[in-house]
Amino acid sequence: MSSTLAQRVLAGDPRAMARAISLIENEDPASADLVRAIFSHTGKAYLVGVTGPPGAGKSTLVDRLTAEIRRAGLTIGVIAVDPTSPFSGGAVLGDRLRMQAHAADQGVFIRSMATRGQLGGLARATGDAALVLDAAGKEIIIIETVGVGQDEVDIIRTADVSIVALVPGTGDEVQALKAGIMEIADIFVVNKADREGADRLAAAVEANLALKSYGEGEWRPPLFKTVATSGRGVPELVEAIWRFRAHSKPTQAARRRTRSEYRLRELVSQRFMDRLEREVLSPGELGALVDQIAAREVDPYTAANDLLGRTLGQLPDRQITKSPHS
Amino acid sequence: MSSTLAQRVLAGDPRAMARAISLIENEDPASADLVRAIFSHTGKAYLVGVTGPPGAGKSTLVDRLTAEIRRAGLTIGVIAVDPTSPFSGGAVLGDRLRMQAHAADQGVFIRSMATRGQLGGLARATGDAALVLDAAGKEIIIIETVGVGQDEVDIIRTADVSIVALVPGTGDEVQALKAGIMEIADIFVVNKADREGADRLAAAVEANLALKSYGEGEWRPPLFKTVATSGRGVPELVEAIWRFRAHSKPTQAARRRTRSEYRLRELVSQRFMDRLEREVLSPGELGALVDQIAAREVDPYTAANDLLGRTLGQLPDRQITKSPHS
Repeated sequence: MSSTLAQRVLAGDPRAMARAISLIENEDPASADLVRAIFSHTGKAYLVGVTGPPGAGKSTLVDRLTAEIRRAGLTIGVIAVDPTSPFSGGAVLGDRLRMQAHAADQGVFIRSMATRGQLGGLARATGDAALVLDAAGKEIIIIETVGVGQDEVDIIRTADVSIVALVPGTGDEVQALKAGIMEIADIFVVNKADREGADRLAAAVEANLALKSYGEGEWRPPLFKTVATSGRGVPELVEAIWRFRAHSKPTQAARRRTRSEYRLRELVSQRFMDRLEREVLSPGELGALVDQIAAREVDPYTAANDLLGRTLGQLPDRQITKSPHS
Repeated sequence: MSSTLAQRVLAGDPRAMARAISLIENEDPASADLVRAIFSHTGKAYLVGVTGPPGAGKSTLVDRLTAEIRRAGLTIGVIAVDPTSPFSGGAVLGDRLRMQAHAADQGVFIRSMATRGQLGGLARATGDAALVLDAAGKEIIIIETVGVGQDEVDIIRTADVSIVALVPGTGDEVQALKAGIMEIADIFVVNKADREGADRLAAAVEANLALKSYGEGEWRPPLFKTVATSGRGVPELVEAIWRFRAHSKPTQAARRRTRSEYRLRELVSQRFMDRLEREVLSPGELGALVDQIAAREVDPYTAANDLLGRTLGQLPDRQITKSPHS
């Protein structure tokens, strides 16, 4: 079934794409097989990340971006990630509403994803969903996420270009400009720029940018004021995306490599825990150890070392196997 | 040195506490030894988590909470976590300003922590820092964090009671009430309640709470309107914390056990990756595999299985060692 699904994804079938992303979202074991089957066909799409605080009007902005990019004849996939919602029920309803604007257009595919309990699960799922859209031939993939925390940073790291959308009027310019956000932004947007405070916010961003000295030929994140509801400023924003793409061409491979490494580490860590529990430990053994920690009989570091010792040997400096592989 | 440090932490020495938390924040290997040494002395403090979007006035609210709880004669430790900032430089300056209000009071200890690159690293560091304050004899530990994303949820899971602080005037009530936040809140606060829109926001929260039916004896999160700058509503909020504490006494152990399990899993996963690289793989081997992924020659799932096979065996269903331990 999974190979058929992969073939249909590769053929660009929207129902197959939706089904594939559902498998990924549900962490269905078949999703790994699917990614295996499509992986060699990926790497062609350009990934655009859009993040920012709640209320910045990102959905509307992404809809406008989609329309504008589509006008240039490119096909688009949108993944709207909501790390604050553990359910995708509401998101799916939102998808329908958002899809209507592009309903007749086969070149646009929009999909929401909600969070999973698992640590880092959402960033991985987002990455895999982007692979599906990539394999299906979408030329531009927009990943939209709410928030300004570490997981949004992780999700945005998946992208080739990162757009940070801010909004005036929260009276909170300083918070919005926290170092973490300043560092991931390739392009800034002050959306709802017709609101009071837009100029002040833009000035605050510019003042922050002015603190850093940019070397010769180094990309200095530009700032655009947009009113997504009317489309004002959106063509200029799209222009800047293409400019960044051209500018970062020499470093794009390195950026993608970092992304691959990050995902591999995360995948190995998580799968190790699954397999340790299923294959190495007796049923209930992990639970018994947790009880001992809760009772303060064992500390978590000793417990962790003990568990690792079951597969890697007890001594921290002991060599296990060194194969000449790869 | 670490045992002396542990002894000084156990004696409640503020400089030792600060030093211990720095070790934890920097992921210094000595921090694990420290946690080992103090762990059996922990579990006595009550952990209060405070989260909410940027600009909700959490710092001021936490300062007021601190003063109010202190008035009841309890000692307090505060950990202010900023997941959006990769540097603690600014945070430390903030500490000094915030400490001044309680400068003469030995019963209050305030400390900021900034993010680390490592996935889940901040939640673990926050948990370990709370252990330090707990071992040092602080009776109430407040963990304050900015944001409404998954990592804040993870951090707040560390707490015995979770307070979600909202703020009117962002025009964004619906976003603030996303399911993830609704579910972790034991107590809601509408801070800056003298602002326009406070009643509307409070009504929106109440309307959301009304959607859920609470069983007989089940805790229904109360909502308080506060003006942290003046202290309005803060005594009532502290009352509610004590009420929740009494109400949740029967389930507190289970909640803490879940927290222990989560931390153990996370710790094992992360340490496995570290040891795999250091002890099992040849130098550069992981990098070569990442190159193959970047070149689309190997997919990440196959690569991950391959790496795991080096320690756990290749076949997914193969049994490795089953010890009768614990």
